[in-house]
Amino acid sequence: MRLSRYFLPLLKETPSEATIASHRYMLRAGMVKQDSAGIYIWLPLGFKVLKKIENIVREEQNKSGAVEILMPTIQSAGHWKETGRYDAYGPEMLRIKDRSNRELLYGPTNEDMITDMFRTYVKSYKDLPQSLYHIQWKFRDERRPRFGVMRGREFLMKDAYSFDVDLESARLSYNKQFVAYLNTFDRLGLQAVPLRADAGPIGGDLSHEFLILAETGESKVYCHSDLLDMKAPGYVSEKDLQKVVDSRTSFYARSDEMHDQTKFEKIPENKRLVARGIEVGHIFQFGDKYSKPMNANVQGADGKVNPVMMGSYGVGVSRLVGGIIEASHDEVGIIWPKSVTPFGVGIINLKVGNDEVDKVCEDLYEKLKNSNIDPLYDDKNDRGGQKFARMDLIGLPYQIIVGPRGLGEGVVEVKVRLSGKKMNLTLEEAVNFIVNEYTSET
Amino acid sequence: MRLSRYFLPLLKETPSEATIASHRYMLRAGMVKQDSAGIYIWLPLGFKVLKKIENIVREEQNKSGAVEILMPTIQSAGHWKETGRYDAYGPEMLRIKDRSNRELLYGPTNEDMITDMFRTYVKSYKDLPQSLYHIQWKFRDERRPRFGVMRGREFLMKDAYSFDVDLESARLSYNKQFVAYLNTFDRLGLQAVPLRADAGPIGGDLSHEFLILAETGESKVYCHSDLLDMKAPGYVSEKDLQKVVDSRTSFYARSDEMHDQTKFEKIPENKRLVARGIEVGHIFQFGDKYSKPMNANVQGADGKVNPVMMGSYGVGVSRLVGGIIEASHDEVGIIWPKSVTPFGVGIINLKVGNDEVDKVCEDLYEKLKNSNIDPLYDDKNDRGGQKFARMDLIGLPYQIIVGPRGLGEGVVEVKVRLSGKKMNLTLEEAVNFIVNEYTSET
Repeated sequence: MRLSRYFLPLLKETPSEATIASHRYMLRAGMVKQDSAGIYIWLPLGFKVLKKIENIVREEQNKSGAVEILMPTIQSAGHWKETGRYDAYGPEMLRIKDRSNRELLYGPTNEDMITDMFRTYVKSYKDLPQSLYHIQWKFRDERRPRFGVMRGREFLMKDAYSFDVDLESARLSYNKQFVAYLNTFDRLGLQAVPLRADAGPIGGDLSHEFLILAETGESKVYCHSDLLDMKAPGYVSEKDLQKVVDSRTSFYARSDEMHDQTKFEKIPENKRLVARGIEVGHIFQFGDKYSKPMNANVQGADGKVNPVMMGSYGVGVSRLVGGIIEASHDEVGIIWPKSVTPFGVGIINLKVGNDEVDKVCEDLYEKLKNSNIDPLYDDKNDRGGQKFARMDLIGLPYQIIVGPRGLGEGVVEVKVRLSGKKMNLTLEEAVNFIVNEYTSET
Repeated sequence: MRLSRYFLPLLKETPSEATIASHRYMLRAGMVKQDSAGIYIWLPLGFKVLKKIENIVREEQNKSGAVEILMPTIQSAGHWKETGRYDAYGPEMLRIKDRSNRELLYGPTNEDMITDMFRTYVKSYKDLPQSLYHIQWKFRDERRPRFGVMRGREFLMKDAYSFDVDLESARLSYNKQFVAYLNTFDRLGLQAVPLRADAGPIGGDLSHEFLILAETGESKVYCHSDLLDMKAPGYVSEKDLQKVVDSRTSFYARSDEMHDQTKFEKIPENKRLVARGIEVGHIFQFGDKYSKPMNANVQGADGKVNPVMMGSYGVGVSRLVGGIIEASHDEVGIIWPKSVTPFGVGIINLKVGNDEVDKVCEDLYEKLKNSNIDPLYDDKNDRGGQKFARMDLIGLPYQIIVGPRGLGEGVVEVKVRLSGKKMNLTLEEAVNFIVNEYTSET
């Protein structure tokens, strides 16, 4: 993409309402614009990151065997009345009446709707197990929306729902999602910690939160520090699932709500970690909490009819955009992990209008495009300082800086955003370096 | 995908409310389930088609130079009051009050919001032209939702918005979208006719509707039949845009609302086509209709400040799922164009449990997956007749039928869904045939 044809409205000043780094940088880098309280327009740069995160979440859900569907944003109040949640949910639910005065709502979650869908079609253990997910906008009418997309009102979430004939099988579905989450967050460049969680208003007994550590996190985390050194498991066969889950859950890891100081102090002192974290995922097994009141029953192999056993599994997709920035930025801007960067590399033309500089930049641009690196080419006629600051702010992992002085010596400058390291390379070396960075690992 | 692990809830009976083919088949083939009036859950098969259409629309928008953003579904009423549309829109707009009693609405379209966003950032001709689009769910509270996803209340739409410094440049933006639409519908396997249109409630002077012909269409179409034989233009350079647009618009083509019988009768009699059509796209140039009341002004090269010239360009993405089925089905089910088929080929195992048949099916399944054909493997233990009917109903373009009798002679049967043609081929020939069908053309 040529910057001159892109829509990247940067802000020079930080709006006063932005108190945390991700909010500040997302506004300044032209990633989002608030339209009304807690409701954002995703501008081109922010949209690209959002889509990349969404696709990684999707790929890992598909690998886990979950099948994608899409439920609507607007729900009938009827299902929620069956489960008793319509009255219980409180003012965070956006309640709506249509032109015929029917009660609708903007879904904050989808257990009730999907249970209704499920009971319509599935009656037998033969059609189980089943895991379905969707990635859809939700609405929660927060009393005080803040921190940008981290606590917005309209937000994008992946929510999966599992249906099993008994608790043993339900545990397997739960474990598949647990492992999918470890792999998802790893691919996003995040170290996520699974905390033992209270099932909260959704209810049930087996539940974990996934948090990423960041100073601005809303939760306090107590855990064994070895958890932070564990690698993502990658593909895990069904028979090894429990082992992999146990290898994490055997460590103490809880938020302050569930914290037990006595248990925490059994960890060797040099391994006790107290930090702040941002919740980016939450998984629940809740048995027949919804299937029982809604009569979502299935016949087992023994001929008996019982409520189907369910679980639900959420990932805050739009929140992750902010979460990744909280975990990866410095004093001048964002530093994107390679897997979610909006563009693979930035090309900075230091002398637009100079034939040789223009030619080398165009050449680089074409070569990198053809190598599927998706470059952003700063072809605007601005000062060098402005170009450097802009490229640092938007945080692409690599920059190639092309100016007449370097070209006189046959080189361009390659800068690694994270380390700040700079290298003078020939054109060919520069392209090879970038391509290699994107293909050699992960 | 193995059918035994998929979620494909077929209906044996057609629900009585489904009066047109697309609605009937989408329900019967387990593509959608209605949750409340005009609001649908997209089940796995329907979701895959929806996504494929969305991606083709996206690719052609990107090729046209439009940049993708994402505006939220929930809008503040404020912008709509500025343009006067809040009162004018009527009961089709879903109006909402939040917990603080602020007036919100579920966006039926986005001119007001994007004009507000634009005026915040862009002040100069130097940052123009600009075309932005998004693909987002909209809501129109239809008095009588019907025909399934063809006239639903919550629906997916691509809407693009162009911003130009003057009318000449705006015309270029309009023409880019016009050509993008011709290419989009062509890739979707549709022959779309651009009709001269009244700008309607959105207002303005240059406007075309794109219709596909189908007996169940809500509009009556009068046009020169040569329009139907014209090929999609593919890539068109800026200097040739007007010529390509003129090559279409020079033919008479109008819906009954704009019909002029005297002009129509100037067409040679054997070229006069009267038919019914389904609107799948609508493009408008409306000048300063929104920019003027909202003070979205830009400074021109001459230093003068004027309202920015705008256009908007819609494609009914979810409606197209139904539209394609209306245009392509027979008495036993859907016939998907290759570009949007949910799976590339269906493999029917006629004797699940027979070692040789199972082995050949698995082999086919792996080979086709590795060739990126995305096969659906019917590995369920059902009768042959049921399997044939199911595969015909869901309408994959090709089927490979594997049974013990054929294997005795070293062959499998390949069936082309559209023509009904059947061929006995060796395993290798069958794979080559399918792969070739997906790579040789388009």
